[in-house]
Amino acid sequence: MKRPIEVNKKRMAAKEPNTVTKRGKPMSKPSKLDTIHHVAIPVPNVAQAVEWYTSRFNCCVEYLDDTWALLAFANTKLALVLPQEHPSHFALSRPDANKFGNLVTHRDGLNSVYIADGFGNSIEVMEGP
Amino acid sequence: MKRPIEVNKKRMAAKEPNTVTKRGKPMSKPSKLDTIHHVAIPVPNVAQAVEWYTSRFNCCVEYLDDTWALLAFANTKLALVLPQEHPSHFALSRPDANKFGNLVTHRDGLNSVYIADGFGNSIEVMEGP
Repeated sequence: MKRPIEVNKKRMAAKEPNTVTKRGKPMSKPSKLDTIHHVAIPVPNVAQAVEWYTSRFNCCVEYLDDTWALLAFANTKLALVLPQEHPSHFALSRPDANKFGNLVTHRDGLNSVYIADGFGNSIEVMEGP
Repeated sequence: MKRPIEVNKKRMAAKEPNTVTKRGKPMSKPSKLDTIHHVAIPVPNVAQAVEWYTSRFNCCVEYLDDTWALLAFANTKLALVLPQEHPSHFALSRPDANKFGNLVTHRDGLNSVYIADGFGNSIEVMEGP
């Protein structure tokens, strides 16, 4: 059940970040990897969750209101959201976010679109570098 | 409902990454922020999910077997896992991971412990810098 499928890490990481083919076609070779802007998890009470996370982990509060908070970690951010406001998701930054659907401008001024992966997960594709 | 709570971003980010107090006590001021090692999302079929993600986003396959895969993005990693193998979670690296519970050595040689935030979310605390 757990036989590893051979992946030549060095080769794929250094030269061909994305070599999985689709319908036999060779994939394009991106010059750089995409960035995960944030991970969003549902919490019933934002203030209580901020207290829980900031009292245990080394992170800083970038934004906080009654409906969501954004905590900065060293390499990405954690959003604490009310489930009725946002789905559990993670967000990627893409210069071509508009190719994934119609972008919506949020109250923080950022443009993004939510897409589904077909496996039950939501992904926010944000317009960004 | 959406009144922002005043957060002086610049001050908190630059000098006091973690200033939320617990029971009136001032919090320690960490010298650096914790790193989010990976985000793990459940998928019913790992190979299909790898195909879906790698054909749409700029990422590279670091590991792949029948039960999980690890995709590297620019700043963190995305784990695609079977729900019966791993819960949906995100993982933090901490030198003092053992303070969060008894560490378990996984088949990749890394030590970690899963904790619950009490709001329905799982966090993997990994031993690491």
